[in-house]
Amino acid sequence: MQKGDFVYISYVGRIKESGEIFDVTSEEIARKEGVYNPEVKYGDVPVIVGAGFVIPGLDEALEKMSVGEKRIVEIEPKKAFGERREDLIKLIPESEFKKQNVDVKVGDFVSVNGIAGRVLSINAGRVRVDFNHPLAGKALIYEVEIKKQVTDTKEKIYAILKYFSNLDESIASVKIDGETAEIETKDIQLAARVKENIIGTIFQWIKEIKKVKFSEVYEKSEKSKS
Amino acid sequence: MQKGDFVYISYVGRIKESGEIFDVTSEEIARKEGVYNPEVKYGDVPVIVGAGFVIPGLDEALEKMSVGEKRIVEIEPKKAFGERREDLIKLIPESEFKKQNVDVKVGDFVSVNGIAGRVLSINAGRVRVDFNHPLAGKALIYEVEIKKQVTDTKEKIYAILKYFSNLDESIASVKIDGETAEIETKDIQLAARVKENIIGTIFQWIKEIKKVKFSEVYEKSEKSKS
Repeated sequence: MQKGDFVYISYVGRIKESGEIFDVTSEEIARKEGVYNPEVKYGDVPVIVGAGFVIPGLDEALEKMSVGEKRIVEIEPKKAFGERREDLIKLIPESEFKKQNVDVKVGDFVSVNGIAGRVLSINAGRVRVDFNHPLAGKALIYEVEIKKQVTDTKEKIYAILKYFSNLDESIASVKIDGETAEIETKDIQLAARVKENIIGTIFQWIKEIKKVKFSEVYEKSEKSKS
Repeated sequence: MQKGDFVYISYVGRIKESGEIFDVTSEEIARKEGVYNPEVKYGDVPVIVGAGFVIPGLDEALEKMSVGEKRIVEIEPKKAFGERREDLIKLIPESEFKKQNVDVKVGDFVSVNGIAGRVLSINAGRVRVDFNHPLAGKALIYEVEIKKQVTDTKEKIYAILKYFSNLDESIASVKIDGETAEIETKDIQLAARVKENIIGTIFQWIKEIKKVKFSEVYEKSEKSKS
């Protein structure tokens, strides 16, 4: 593939050391492997090759693959979720958590100033929290397949919508009119941040589109007549 | 006029007792009377008669007036900003303000749980705050004129946009297509709350519109190519 190609991929991601699955796109495999999570929306994942939609090591592998090809790719930590950094382990007074009425126990995931960390130990009122990504320092093994490529402008926009907001054709409809892409949703409003990401990605990776129009349609119901 | 008519009005609102102007729509009069505020957007104000866009006493007066007519209307407190209520004067420990690093002085306007109040006195660490509307208990005198009526659907929607978001035709454009009104803005996103108000008001007061479409258009600039 080439940088900028729009593809849908499926994968099983495992931690090399333990063989544990940490991410999988297929519901069937998730169930079979006993890692099914009802809150996850399974299915092939849209990726713009080389655009940072996936970790660097996987992005590089995709560039060397073709549509329909399946590979097993080993990825070293620095091309996955980074090396573990000792300076990301912090000591926090237990009183900080008490102030927020949070009861901490070893192993808990906590959020401090919006950053997630895991409690390693609690001693003499001091809590050691590890703010490294849970997969930092781990070599990973991906079994990845490029299921299909999309080249149609409208399909590319659906791929971007799916990536940033999990919207599919049942919720959002896309119309292309010359250099304008109209993205229409019913009764829902995308967050400003999500729109920014969608717009930025469209302008960067779909050269033929120079204008993006977000439309939200609201219909009068019997209720709103009162 | 009749309930549901869309009009633009101008007014000068005075406190009866003191003659003080508390609200005025004309920049010229504001300057002449020495109450000009550079942060206020002056100009005629859109009103749907009887829809609560203005205080009840003024709404009632508008129903009795015709387009082009000017009246001086005296409004008693209960049809203006309500009677003063002693139970809206609260004692708050000064420590509550100190906790938020707020230094209170007599006469200050403060915000407590999102409600604005005025500090009446501070004694022995207790702050007396008056949460009555500053115009509660006041009789008012409005000099009001109905400048024009709008009957065109599109103009009615512009009136609603102006009322809820101060958007005018330079920022928002309205298109009517059958029973659908499309409201298009460039590079800006209306808050969800504002949209709800606009939609609700359109469906309630413009019977011919059954569908509202909000569109935001974003154009690619040289910057967004990077």
